[in-house]
Parts: sequence; C-alpha cells; structure tokens
Amino acid sequence: MIIDCHGHYTTAPKELQKWRDAQIAALKDAKHPPSSKGTVAISDDQIRESLENAQLKIQRERGTDVTIFSPRAAGMGHHLGNETTSRHWSEHCNELIHRVCTLYPQNFVGVCQLPQTPGVSPANCVAELERCVRDFGFVGCNLNPDPSGGYWTDPPLTDKFWYPIYEKMVELDVPAMIHVSTSCNPNFHTTGGHYINGDTTAFMQLISEPKLFKDFPTLKFVIPHGGGAVPYHWGRYRGLAQDMGRPPLKDLLLGNVFFDTCVYHRPGIELLLKVIPADNILFASEMVGAVKGIDPDTGHYYDDTKRYLDAIDWIEPADREKIFQGNVSKVYPRFAKRAKK
Amino acid sequence: MIIDCHGHYTTAPKELQKWRDAQIAALKDAKHPPSSKGTVAISDDQIRESLENAQLKIQRERGTDVTIFSPRAAGMGHHLGNETTSRHWSEHCNELIHRVCTLYPQNFVGVCQLPQTPGVSPANCVAELERCVRDFGFVGCNLNPDPSGGYWTDPPLTDKFWYPIYEKMVELDVPAMIHVSTSCNPNFHTTGGHYINGDTTAFMQLISEPKLFKDFPTLKFVIPHGGGAVPYHWGRYRGLAQDMGRPPLKDLLLGNVFFDTCVYHRPGIELLLKVIPADNILFASEMVGAVKGIDPDTGHYYDDTKRYLDAIDWIEPADREKIFQGNVSKVYPRFAKRAKK
Repeated sequence: MIIDCHGHYTTAPKELQKWRDAQIAALKDAKHPPSSKGTVAISDDQIRESLENAQLKIQRERGTDVTIFSPRAAGMGHHLGNETTSRHWSEHCNELIHRVCTLYPQNFVGVCQLPQTPGVSPANCVAELERCVRDFGFVGCNLNPDPSGGYWTDPPLTDKFWYPIYEKMVELDVPAMIHVSTSCNPNFHTTGGHYINGDTTAFMQLISEPKLFKDFPTLKFVIPHGGGAVPYHWGRYRGLAQDMGRPPLKDLLLGNVFFDTCVYHRPGIELLLKVIPADNILFASEMVGAVKGIDPDTGHYYDDTKRYLDAIDWIEPADREKIFQGNVSKVYPRFAKRAKK
Repeated sequence: MIIDCHGHYTTAPKELQKWRDAQIAALKDAKHPPSSKGTVAISDDQIRESLENAQLKIQRERGTDVTIFSPRAAGMGHHLGNETTSRHWSEHCNELIHRVCTLYPQNFVGVCQLPQTPGVSPANCVAELERCVRDFGFVGCNLNPDPSGGYWTDPPLTDKFWYPIYEKMVELDVPAMIHVSTSCNPNFHTTGGHYINGDTTAFMQLISEPKLFKDFPTLKFVIPHGGGAVPYHWGRYRGLAQDMGRPPLKDLLLGNVFFDTCVYHRPGIELLLKVIPADNILFASEMVGAVKGIDPDTGHYYDDTKRYLDAIDWIEPADREKIFQGNVSKVYPRFAKRAKK
C-alpha cells in the first residue's frame, strides 16, 4: 500500500469558499449580524465531481492508494476574524473532509484543521480535535505555528502556550503536521516563502528548546515540504545543536520529528534520503497543491514525487516500504488501527 | 587564487561591542545626552591579535587566499534605535573593516554594513555606501531585507522603497549580499532560522516581481548560506515560476542572482552543484561564523566548505575555477580591478 501523508482538499466545491467569503464580508460590515455557523450546501455528487478528475484521478495515474487528507492549508486563514470565526470555518472544513472520507473510505483518511486564532490559547482547539478524532475517525491535525499569517506574533512551538493542544494530541495518540497558512505579509509568498520558512523555523525551535519532548515523549510532528531547508542544511543544524551542547539530532528529536517527501525534483529527494534516516521519512506529494505544472525537463508533473522515489535504485527495499507505508503506522497510530478494521 | 566571498569580523576586539553597548544603553536612559559617534579605541595590534589566531590562521590552514570581509551580520541590529544610531554604528564597523583591509591587503577585501532603519528609506544608506566604496575601496555591501529583525515590516526587496540604494549600487558597480541580522522575534533562531528564512524569502520575492531586474539589468545579489532552502527546492521554484508565467529561472534571474557555498555538509554542497549552474556559485565559508564545532563524523570543521568541494571529483576544472575565483570578478567587478593593481 502506498500512502500519501500530505494532501489538502484544494478542489473543494466553490460553495465552501462562498460561505467563507460571506463570513469574512460579515466581519467587515457592521450592519450584518455577527457570523453564525450556518450551512454549506454541497451535495455528495459535487464532492465526487471535485475529486474524480483531480485527487482520485491522480491517485490512479500515479499508483498511490490512500491520501491523508486535510482542508486546504492556505485557506485556514487563522488571522481572519476571531475565535468564533475560526471555529465555524474549521468545523465546516473538517465536516467536508469527513464527508470525503466517508464517500471514499479506501482513498482518503482525515486530518483536521484547528480553529486557531493569534494570541488565543490553543486550548480552544481541543474540542474540535477531539470531535474530529473520536467522531470522524481522523488520524491527525495540522498545527499552524504562526496563526498571524506571516508576522509570527505567537510564542515558539516549544512554549507552554501550546501545551494544551499537545496534551490532547498525546492523549488521542495523533500527530500534528506543522503547517502554516496563507501569508498576509507581502514579504512572504505563501507557498514559495512562508511555507518553507515555517518548516525551517519550527525545526530550529525544536532544537533550541528540547524540553518539549521531555515533557511529551510521545508527541509527534511531521514537518512538511521535505522539512523546509533542514535536510539541505543538515550539517548546519547538527553543528548548531552541537555548539548548544545538545545530543546528536538523532537522539535529540528524531524520535518525535518526521519529514515528508514534498520536494519537487529528484536531486532534492536524493539529498533527503541521504541525510535523513528512512525511519523519519514519509511519502507525500501535496497534490493537488502548490505546484501544478509539468516539468519540461522530465515531461512529468513536478509534484509527482513517487516518480523520483521510484527512479532511485539505491533505496533499500525495507526503507522504501517504510517511506511508502510503514512509517505511517508509527507516526499515525490511528491510521494503522483503522486499516486493520 | 581562492576567494572566500563571505566572512564577517566576528572576532573584533571587545572595545567595539563596548561602544555599541554604551550606545544602546544611552538610548534607554533619558538622563544621558543623545548618542554621539565618539571613538572606538582599538589599536592595530589588537586588530592583528583578533585575526591572527582566527581568520588568518584558518585561511592558512584551509588554503584560502582572500576573504571578502564585512562587519558581523548578527551585530548590525538595524532594529535598535533610530537612523542616527544605525549611522554611527555602521560607520564604526565599516571603519574597522577598512583598518583590517589596510593592515592585511592580501587577505581581506571590504564589504560594508549599511545604516538601515526599519521604515526609513534606504536612501539614507547611499552616502555610507559611497564612502566605503570610493574612500575605502570596498567592493560590495550587505543589504538587510528585514531591518526590523524578524517582524518583516518593510516592503519586499522588489518594491520601489529599495530603489535608491539599487541606483547607487549600479552606479558604483557593487553587488549586495542579502543578509539579515539578529532576530529579536523569539520564533526565529538567528543563525538557524532567520538567516536561512531571509535567503529563501528574498529569492521568492525576486521570482514574484521580475520587474526589478528589468529596471536594473546590472544589479547583482549574492544569496548567502547556499541560497537558504532554494537549491533543495529548485523544482518547487522552477514550478512556481512556471505557474506564474515567468520564463525559466535561468533567464528570469540567474544573470543577477548568485549563491554562496555556506552549506556545512557534503551532500548539501553536492546538491548545490548539481542544480545551480557553476556560473552562479561563489565559494564561501562564513568562517568564523554560525557553526564553530568539528563534525565528529568527519573530524573536520563543519564550516570548512573548501574540503567538501575539494572532495567532489566530478566538478569540471573550469567550473571549479569559476567557483573559487572566476565568478568573483563578474559579481564584484571592483574586486577584479583591485586585484589587477
């Protein structure tokens, strides 16, 4: 079985965005009543249609089996509105993912968006995480390390500010993918700057304050987009940790931190495989995502990451199995339990 | 000749920092008169001592000839105080670099710090750049894309806000290394987060707004630390540019943008060489810099980047010459003129 651990519902029927647009418009318009959750009217057929020619078609074409699927990351927009805004929006997005996973239980397994808001304790995300895991069978969450959308005004991920959500993650035995949302800072292009910076930033935070994994030994994070800049600068991170008197990175955090394979060219994938242990790499493509085109040099989609992995003949078969499937059972224990059923 | 294009005076005599500490203290203390430039009392012998057992020793040990040398990047601290604060501090730092280059004209060539201040037009940096280039013989400058120190409150580098300094750079025929300073945002570790993010961010800004290099066809930027995350995600950047309707990256910006080799392990250096044309790579180590230790896996300093390059036997001799020496003449024309003398 080939599991893609990183997919977002980027092709959701337009009614979802319409609801969001109205919600945001109401925030700006003092004449309108405060936002209420309301309903998003999307039929099962609309959901099927949105997936058949996109994620499902791509799964078939590329030969992947299951996608761990969450709401559109750039759409989370935690900086907009207030706690209630984020709660209503997250609930709708997660309910839609649940419908996708119910319609296509062989193809999609859910991961939830959290109703984060800048400056507000992530304790307010606990109920939604619990609902998604216990009621919907979701296997993880996306945690935004910068709900401000590019101004980084909340504390680092190692701060006790974040502990309420970690306590619930540990209790439910679900990991978080550390994933920022859209950037509203004109300095940061969302998918070309902010996403990659978010990954790099989070990893360095985890080196800087290793107490986190002493407090939560079973807490697990997936750092997407191949770990941002981290594998390319693995020597820098090893050296910085060493200068800080930390144990080797393997002992410091590789029991808790994992990288996906969303790196859109073969030399990058090769580097990732050379420097990061296979036990810490999870196959992913983020299709349909940030990069939609075909690489003229190869004639294939940039984000067809399976093809890069398939072409590398020096990956040990046991390692290949871990990357495509085995590590998911370790990082997402609820995925494994679900698969057994 | 082997030229290291990226070195900072991290070992400056402590009198420099004492002056800075007093300057900062005066900012906070309403009883003190406003900061005046004053003097930094450092003898030539102190300068010699600060270098002999550090940068000069390392040059000899590693077999490099010249370092393009600038004030300590983390020390620039553009977010502190106001325009006058930055002007006095930059002048002192640059004057000290000039003294280093005068004492050791064979070993060091100067690059200046600019007196940037958040929210203030870089037009205020023109005089100091001109002084350093015309009076001191400096060959370039360090340009901080985020003078706020981790809050990214100024416009992107492609904004007309920055044009006054670009106009002077083009007139003087000097490049800028895009280099952030210390982070005062607790989310960003200075050398492990903010530095790398600054590089990645700047590159993506240049893809997003290609008008800059139409307005300044001869403007040149060096992106340090191996280009941040860029070479590792070269497929992503190629794909994003393509999705935006831009020409291939080579045509879009590789006439203006160059990467150094401050990548502290061999697999990273190999990736850089595989994906970035040799014409766009400049040898650098940033010694004595962010990572000071010895890699237990190799027994050598992490930042001994020459060793990684020397060990790679598939670099064409002509490319090796470009990386170690030839490209500097192209990117820093004043270095070449100086060498001829």
